[in-house]
Amino acid sequence: MRVLLPDLPEFRALTEVGERSVPGCDLAYYSDGHVPDGEASGVVLWFASSDTRDRLLATPGVRWVLTLTAGIDHVRNLIPPGVQLFNANRLHERAVAVHALAGMLTAARGFHRFRDAQARHDWAPPKTLSESGLISLDRTRVVLWGFGHIGRNLEELLRPFDVFLNGISSATTDSERDEFLSTADFVVLLLPSTPDTRGIVNADIIGRMKRGAWLVNVGRGNLIVRDDLIAALRSGHLSGAVLDVTDPEPLPQDDPLWAEENVIITPHIASTTTDLVYRGASLTRDFLIDLQQGHEPEGLVESWRKY
Amino acid sequence: MRVLLPDLPEFRALTEVGERSVPGCDLAYYSDGHVPDGEASGVVLWFASSDTRDRLLATPGVRWVLTLTAGIDHVRNLIPPGVQLFNANRLHERAVAVHALAGMLTAARGFHRFRDAQARHDWAPPKTLSESGLISLDRTRVVLWGFGHIGRNLEELLRPFDVFLNGISSATTDSERDEFLSTADFVVLLLPSTPDTRGIVNADIIGRMKRGAWLVNVGRGNLIVRDDLIAALRSGHLSGAVLDVTDPEPLPQDDPLWAEENVIITPHIASTTTDLVYRGASLTRDFLIDLQQGHEPEGLVESWRKY
Repeated sequence: MRVLLPDLPEFRALTEVGERSVPGCDLAYYSDGHVPDGEASGVVLWFASSDTRDRLLATPGVRWVLTLTAGIDHVRNLIPPGVQLFNANRLHERAVAVHALAGMLTAARGFHRFRDAQARHDWAPPKTLSESGLISLDRTRVVLWGFGHIGRNLEELLRPFDVFLNGISSATTDSERDEFLSTADFVVLLLPSTPDTRGIVNADIIGRMKRGAWLVNVGRGNLIVRDDLIAALRSGHLSGAVLDVTDPEPLPQDDPLWAEENVIITPHIASTTTDLVYRGASLTRDFLIDLQQGHEPEGLVESWRKY
Repeated sequence: MRVLLPDLPEFRALTEVGERSVPGCDLAYYSDGHVPDGEASGVVLWFASSDTRDRLLATPGVRWVLTLTAGIDHVRNLIPPGVQLFNANRLHERAVAVHALAGMLTAARGFHRFRDAQARHDWAPPKTLSESGLISLDRTRVVLWGFGHIGRNLEELLRPFDVFLNGISSATTDSERDEFLSTADFVVLLLPSTPDTRGIVNADIIGRMKRGAWLVNVGRGNLIVRDDLIAALRSGHLSGAVLDVTDPEPLPQDDPLWAEENVIITPHIASTTTDLVYRGASLTRDFLIDLQQGHEPEGLVESWRKY
């Protein structure tokens, strides 16, 4: 079995003799300047430019593609018929859930505004308690929109806060959804980008949210209609937003989101950890061993599932 | 029983007829311009200037003082002999523990640096994973220095992260302490300010900490020798510090801590929540009812305890 892998030290280690190796696999490495010639039965996609991606997917003999991302919107329309697509939710779900909690706590404890004050060397306690907006998260109401692996991780992280948690999935009726949204202090978007989810958070939906709520997006930037969010922030209907994803990315210098005091932006790093590539290589190793042993690896994308 | 209370609406409600009232107590209200004349058996101290505090403590007949703070360093030397001092740990411990976790997650997920980038309208993902410093907190090693009510709350909040947690108390030997410090990713200071704890985190102690660790202080500012902390940050020995308390407070405009990128400063608001005064009034009500019923209220400060 010949497989194309990204040319990173952690993936090179898979060819070496030792406990990290995958005996019996012919591993070849690509980088943005170099895609190996010849047939291969599988491609592990990660950190590849769109040009490199196109060349990799044109490799003769490919029967499967493993993208070491959680989202698949960058490849879903490029996979040739008959080729199986796998993704790597479990590589990302934990860190994304932790990042979502971190964003909620940053908002709840005002760390973003105190950082702005720090830049001015200004010790700036809130003038009144009600103006402070500071809360402990305890017994707040939280909606997780898209309730899969990340949602279950986040549910576990929120358990000590005794929150009232509701999940919205494709099985949730519109009236249930509206009821959840109308009482939530935090609405956390965990959805992938699909034709059905693009722009799902628009003025209509934001209008159904409770006044003073926070929106947290660790799904995909195009879930939110940007101008509708900004209008809701400026009218005071929403208290703020934590955005790890934007549309487009990188967010352009002149985008009005940057200057909104209660918009907290991180550059699509929710799943990033110092050991991410190591963990990606380990997942790849387990994946290849599953294939060699005739088991179907985890992560097969079933296209009929919305979320 | 005549009691002096801060003149705030939530405390005024204690005199009104209804479920928040305290029948049989003669409640009188002070503010920074006005301290009631005459005898009183108790004083509830909160939001009082040092001048008002002195006048309140000189009230004839006072047998007890309830300070609605966790720390007692502002009153411990002012309490006349024979007067009982109570504090209000349980009013603050939960929010302080949440704030400490929020600070740890802000650091772990880089929210402070991304906020700085946001001010420049700069989408700035880390150039390399190792440089990112981003972690999930999972299975990190955490030391809680001062292991009382706040520590137990924080332990509960950290449980889903499966951290390795060690507490340092006055019963911990120096060699145990050094062992804990030498492996900790986060050292969280939860100590009060006493003659024994002032300057306890100095160059010697910082030198015993693991390279790359974070220091979190939600105790008192004077626990840390400021110049020793700055030296350790600049040498790279410590990765950063989360400081809700400083010495002095407010931190002066020209203090070098403000400009350290990986120092995250909040203005002594760890225990602040929008409902803090309401909660303080509720605690006061329970306290007065305990006294009326002949029970000793919670929170008696036993001076022989260090921490």
